[in-house]
Amino acid sequence: MKARVTVTLKNGVLDPQGKAIEGALKSLGVDGIASVRQGKVFDIELGTADKSQAEASLKAACEKLLANTVIENYRVELT
Amino acid sequence: MKARVTVTLKNGVLDPQGKAIEGALKSLGVDGIASVRQGKVFDIELGTADKSQAEASLKAACEKLLANTVIENYRVELT
Repeated sequence: MKARVTVTLKNGVLDPQGKAIEGALKSLGVDGIASVRQGKVFDIELGTADKSQAEASLKAACEKLLANTVIENYRVELT
Repeated sequence: MKARVTVTLKNGVLDPQGKAIEGALKSLGVDGIASVRQGKVFDIELGTADKSQAEASLKAACEKLLANTVIENYRVELT
């Protein structure tokens, strides 16, 4: 079983990395980009075929390590 | 117009960051995780409402800055 976890900054949290990318794109001459926010994505392979067990593992992984829930949101998609 | 760009390592490219996360999850006692690969996600707001122009800008952004196409794949989703 495979899953994709997407971790993004919450609204209102400053994103200097995104701002830097925005500036870099402007200096590279890429037009039409209004704003950029960067997040992380984790492609996870699970050892179990049981969906609810997989979801529990992924939730634990997100809460404990992958996302800082004070400033970040996470979304889990099982594929 | 908004877009999400997902950049992931190509198959076969070593991912020490993913390996480290895998190890950390094991030591934290999270079971059932077989492997982890990390990628990046960019949430981009575009200044244009024209779809083909947006796609051209995003392609240029990916090729020039967001992805290293030698070792990474990227996927653009307009939302």
